[in-house]
Amino acid sequence: MITVALPKGALLKDSIQTFQALGLDFSAFLDSSNRQLQIMDPTQTAKALLVRAQDVPVYVEYGQAQLGVVGYDVLREKKPAVADLADLRYGKCRMSVAVKAASPYRSALELSPHCRVASKFVYCAREYFHSIDLPVEIIPLYGSVELGPITGMSEAIVDLVSTGRTLKDNGLIEIEVLFESTARLIAHPLSYRLNSGGMNEWIEKIRASLLAPT
Amino acid sequence: MITVALPKGALLKDSIQTFQALGLDFSAFLDSSNRQLQIMDPTQTAKALLVRAQDVPVYVEYGQAQLGVVGYDVLREKKPAVADLADLRYGKCRMSVAVKAASPYRSALELSPHCRVASKFVYCAREYFHSIDLPVEIIPLYGSVELGPITGMSEAIVDLVSTGRTLKDNGLIEIEVLFESTARLIAHPLSYRLNSGGMNEWIEKIRASLLAPT
Repeated sequence: MITVALPKGALLKDSIQTFQALGLDFSAFLDSSNRQLQIMDPTQTAKALLVRAQDVPVYVEYGQAQLGVVGYDVLREKKPAVADLADLRYGKCRMSVAVKAASPYRSALELSPHCRVASKFVYCAREYFHSIDLPVEIIPLYGSVELGPITGMSEAIVDLVSTGRTLKDNGLIEIEVLFESTARLIAHPLSYRLNSGGMNEWIEKIRASLLAPT
Repeated sequence: MITVALPKGALLKDSIQTFQALGLDFSAFLDSSNRQLQIMDPTQTAKALLVRAQDVPVYVEYGQAQLGVVGYDVLREKKPAVADLADLRYGKCRMSVAVKAASPYRSALELSPHCRVASKFVYCAREYFHSIDLPVEIIPLYGSVELGPITGMSEAIVDLVSTGRTLKDNGLIEIEVLFESTARLIAHPLSYRLNSGGMNEWIEKIRASLLAPT
């Protein structure tokens, strides 16, 4: 038997569909009255854990789940020791630098050295500004990063953008894209190598479904 | 004019009441249809920011807010450079070590050296186990920490406990209390020393209200 770690939030519905296509039904997690964090597929062949998106690679890294679905952004930020097996294509968004639309900045290189950048993605932000050789002060935030420039606490933010609606509503504009992100199928490396619980069969089925025309 | 950082979540209602008692009305934040993250008091004498609990000390540390309300647990975890001015007494909870009720452990010292401890409060957990001279591996999680022992990923957790209901529902028991936590009134140290925007008057009023019999 295999255990799959599924992310709460934006990717949950599509993640459940990915496994439904293989005959594994974890749709009970979508029921708004559901309080369980662990469920068994009705065929009793697989188990699923419902965890925070950032925790998915943790459960997979420690082998508590052999497979997981998580955004590429989380993999870039946390660099967990997991195997990135397939691009599931949904959950498209991008990691971007944004500033106040009223500011003079139109590219990241125009930002002043030692300016402040607020982000939930501290490592991604640090790595990016290091790569363009611009020393900045990263301010770690947990939510509503757009308040950074609005309150004047930071000149810029590094954040995930999908429709761009939140930026627009807050008078911010994107000036740089660090990378594109989509949902990824990840696996515990050792379990993958040893084909624990016959997991490779599931992985091949997911890969095949990605090749099929939609 | 002063700016106050208020925490989303469990402490919001009481925090708003603290300022209402001074004649500052930020109750618009309690309106479920509210989408604003910044509001002005109707008397135009103070502004409030609505931010994640962990972000309150960040806005206060950077001086974007002169005052803030935040749980002592966040101050212990983040050690921000802010002045801790008053114990507001609400939001009572405790930081505890918990294990599976079915496990043999009944105190933290009975845990095996190098066992795994899952927590959202990585620094508090590390500091505590260091203080009792027990080397453990801390597994950082973002949510549903109780899944750690349930899935077998960790022997113990360090987490905030208020009623104890979540622990009980998950078959866990508290075996050690690290510290008690309540909501605190915090200030930007320099603004406090310079009495920016006449903030000391507000602080004295809050302190006086805490001394009044309830």
